[in-house]
Amino acid sequence: MCVITLTTDFGTGDFEVGVLKGVIWKIAPQVKIADLSHEIGPQNVLEGALLLGRCTPFFPEGSLHVVVVDPGVGTKRRVIVARFGPQYFVGPDNGLVTLMLERAEQNGWPVKIVSADQTKYWLPEISNVFHGRDIFSPLAAHIANGVLLSQIGTPIDNPVRLEIPQPQRIESGWKAQVMNIDHFGNLSTNLRREHLTGMGDLIVQIKDVTIRGLSQTFGEQPSGSLVALINSEGFLEIAEVNGSAARHLNAVTHDLVEVLPIKRDA
Amino acid sequence: MCVITLTTDFGTGDFEVGVLKGVIWKIAPQVKIADLSHEIGPQNVLEGALLLGRCTPFFPEGSLHVVVVDPGVGTKRRVIVARFGPQYFVGPDNGLVTLMLERAEQNGWPVKIVSADQTKYWLPEISNVFHGRDIFSPLAAHIANGVLLSQIGTPIDNPVRLEIPQPQRIESGWKAQVMNIDHFGNLSTNLRREHLTGMGDLIVQIKDVTIRGLSQTFGEQPSGSLVALINSEGFLEIAEVNGSAARHLNAVTHDLVEVLPIKRDA
Amino acid sequence: MCVITLTTDFGTGDFEVGVLKGVIWKIAPQVKIADLSHEIGPQNVLEGALLLGRCTPFFPEGSLHVVVVDPGVGTKRRVIVARFGPQYFVGPDNGLVTLMLERAEQNGWPVKIVSADQTKYWLPEISNVFHGRDIFSPLAAHIANGVLLSQIGTPIDNPVRLEIPQPQRIESGWKAQVMNIDHFGNLSTNLRREHLTGMGDLIVQIKDVTIRGLSQTFGEQPSGSLVALINSEGFLEIAEVNGSAARHLNAVTHDLVEVLPIKRDA
Repeated sequence: MCVITLTTDFGTGDFEVGVLKGVIWKIAPQVKIADLSHEIGPQNVLEGALLLGRCTPFFPEGSLHVVVVDPGVGTKRRVIVARFGPQYFVGPDNGLVTLMLERAEQNGWPVKIVSADQTKYWLPEISNVFHGRDIFSPLAAHIANGVLLSQIGTPIDNPVRLEIPQPQRIESGWKAQVMNIDHFGNLSTNLRREHLTGMGDLIVQIKDVTIRGLSQTFGEQPSGSLVALINSEGFLEIAEVNGSAARHLNAVTHDLVEVLPIKRDA
Repeated sequence: MCVITLTTDFGTGDFEVGVLKGVIWKIAPQVKIADLSHEIGPQNVLEGALLLGRCTPFFPEGSLHVVVVDPGVGTKRRVIVARFGPQYFVGPDNGLVTLMLERAEQNGWPVKIVSADQTKYWLPEISNVFHGRDIFSPLAAHIANGVLLSQIGTPIDNPVRLEIPQPQRIESGWKAQVMNIDHFGNLSTNLRREHLTGMGDLIVQIKDVTIRGLSQTFGEQPSGSLVALINSEGFLEIAEVNGSAARHLNAVTHDLVEVLPIKRDA
Repeated sequence: MCVITLTTDFGTGDFEVGVLKGVIWKIAPQVKIADLSHEIGPQNVLEGALLLGRCTPFFPEGSLHVVVVDPGVGTKRRVIVARFGPQYFVGPDNGLVTLMLERAEQNGWPVKIVSADQTKYWLPEISNVFHGRDIFSPLAAHIANGVLLSQIGTPIDNPVRLEIPQPQRIESGWKAQVMNIDHFGNLSTNLRREHLTGMGDLIVQIKDVTIRGLSQTFGEQPSGSLVALINSEGFLEIAEVNGSAARHLNAVTHDLVEVLPIKRDA
């Protein structure tokens, strides 16, 4: 069994996503295909990289992740196929792999990256504007069929990496930022549970609002209240109980979030 | 062959839905997965229950329906796994099963419900905010692999049930309400075909509008006209031919709909 | 292996799409199902036909395409099952097959079309308003199981065909129109690469805007500039680099696009 996942900025209303599946199944009819998201913001490579970082750890060993967020399609940017421990990536070399690569390095997993320059594993005709169909999908399907990375291209060791914004230490607290706003309007930040260890009681500040303490669940506070909690991946998140923190706070990605210890004698 | 379906209020633009699929396939690579809807209104348990009631009868015997509409996640609400005749449910104990249970009772099907308290069938790490990933999906996958309900938890006989609004008899007609508004703007009500048996010619009233008689199809009347008809599941529905009745009438869920016999001598 | 694709105007938030999958797998549990799009404009048969024309060539031989864009559901319009060379169509006889049929004729592929009048391959109960569930999906599943077109209905040779707008020759150029606006706001036209052969340097005019020459890729020009290029299927397309040409130009489907040679001595 082999799973190929698809992540794009195509939306689901056009023809592209269906075509990717047709191309894959024409070459590798045995694979299962799962959509991760097709609502990555247009050309938003960072958003794609973050989504991959969140999803891929939960997929079976040997899963292949095809990603088409590709503002440089048709230019000289490379196409890469990469193995990061148990997972594979296929897509443009524009930084989409950043979090998969980081995770592999942290775990000491084997990493192998090739620049996919062997055209025999592409479709026969290549457009300038849809390499997801013409190059990435066929590559993924061929790998699912047992073709080796070494057959597909030339090893490289310098994939493009994005700079992921990191929280900064301030006095006795942290300056962080909103990294993602989800469907519920929850604001997840780049501050991890570990950053908060030993801080004791704390407050979270965003815009003009101060939230006291961390909640354990959404259901603990009355509807409409803003809460701070650790989300399912271990990051600090700001949410409105049964509502949208994004709307409540008029918040956008990259908004500043500060976490400070409670001043006892203020 | 085994089908697992997914119904959530996560939307399709975030990471959650993809992750559910990864978790399931990691444990049970042989299953097929189908999305029912990920656009249930946030925390709208009734909407989830109605959707399950509409979809599950059409699925193969042994299908498992994982539902993540879970405002109480991380609180003391139970997680349940249930068998209702040929279909299984996995999700929070908050009323989502109401229509599956009702149908089983009406058909005299065997019903078995357990509170899923055996942590060995969960993921090793459990967050407070994403039990769909950490508990429901692994449970569904283990059942697909042949694990029994009796291994997964403790039998219960008091699942939470929602009160589904019922139509009320008035004089010689019915007072009903809009239960669902679909993508086309069609308004389906809680009044069944059987309620109308023997009423003869009738009128349907919603807001200030009166519709005379039932149409058989959408195509019978000119574009733009409002029609009443029996929908594909046997409920009275109000539609605009080639348009949106919801927009036409500025209608929302729970709006009042009255059905009355035509007064011959008025 | 057999693939069944689904294309509808149902959206993804309602119960219909899930039900189609249940019905198919109940009859033919071995098939793979792929969504093409469920965001066809309500009752927009031309949009459905164009999407099928773009997607179906990339699917494996023997794929079945179920299409539910069906304003005439429940009226006397026929249900057809058709084979166009390597691909099958199942849906209403309202012109959805136009581009699949045209392609088959251009390639000299065998074409077989039947009016599906044998009710034994339908669900036992047929509603007036949801033939996708009651008729099309079961038909597709039975064909996947090996039932022959000749068992399913009566041969016909006069399927409904849409008139697809064609570009018109003007002086030394072409008068074309916007046929599709995608998720990025790119405007694809009905003018093919072949129409432009031998025209030399050219300008593209839409609304009050003139674009000089064809670009090879999106990445060649600065962000925000309007470019004209040949899209992945060989049609002239107008795009804004890292933006939306539709919003930039306030463009809609059927807007006029003119292509003219550059006048050297003007």
